[in-house]
Amino acid sequence: MHLISYDIENDRLRTKAAKLLIQHGLHRVQFSVFMGNLEPKAEKALTTALQALSLDSNWVLSDSFLVLPLHQNTLKQMSVIGAWPARWEEISGNLKTLIL
Amino acid sequence: MHLISYDIENDRLRTKAAKLLIQHGLHRVQFSVFMGNLEPKAEKALTTALQALSLDSNWVLSDSFLVLPLHQNTLKQMSVIGAWPARWEEISGNLKTLIL
Repeated sequence: MHLISYDIENDRLRTKAAKLLIQHGLHRVQFSVFMGNLEPKAEKALTTALQALSLDSNWVLSDSFLVLPLHQNTLKQMSVIGAWPARWEEISGNLKTLIL
Repeated sequence: MHLISYDIENDRLRTKAAKLLIQHGLHRVQFSVFMGNLEPKAEKALTTALQALSLDSNWVLSDSFLVLPLHQNTLKQMSVIGAWPARWEEISGNLKTLIL
């Protein structure tokens, strides 16, 4: 499981980043925070794509992606005040357990 | 170490949330993502304050705080594309190790 968040000033670039993250199997859990399972191969491809994005002429010095690998245990300790992300059981992998 | 992120639509409420998080010792690592060490007592006080905020009349149904306790090991595996958070050594606790 990975958590990836971003701070990107340029609208077009931010939309591009969100699309990239979703294309690589992540789910939007907040406006600028994404979570999901990334296989090592997919993680490498995504990192390369994000690095390429950071070379765009609209990328500014203060822009960033945080990439945080999370253990399943960490996920279990997550709490939410307000709205839980849509389809959280699916994202967190709890659904898989139920199906099995 | 905790990571707390938020999605809050109302400007005034969002500013209030940021102030609360910083007052409780967290550091802003991205616009809507904060990190820092929270002692159990401080964590409880902060959770209460955030829950109170979610009862404000400007809080909307889609607003949320994600509260994620992180192990020091998770922190070591964090990677950044672009700008590292300001004073990262201090936030992550690496500075303490150097001083000791």
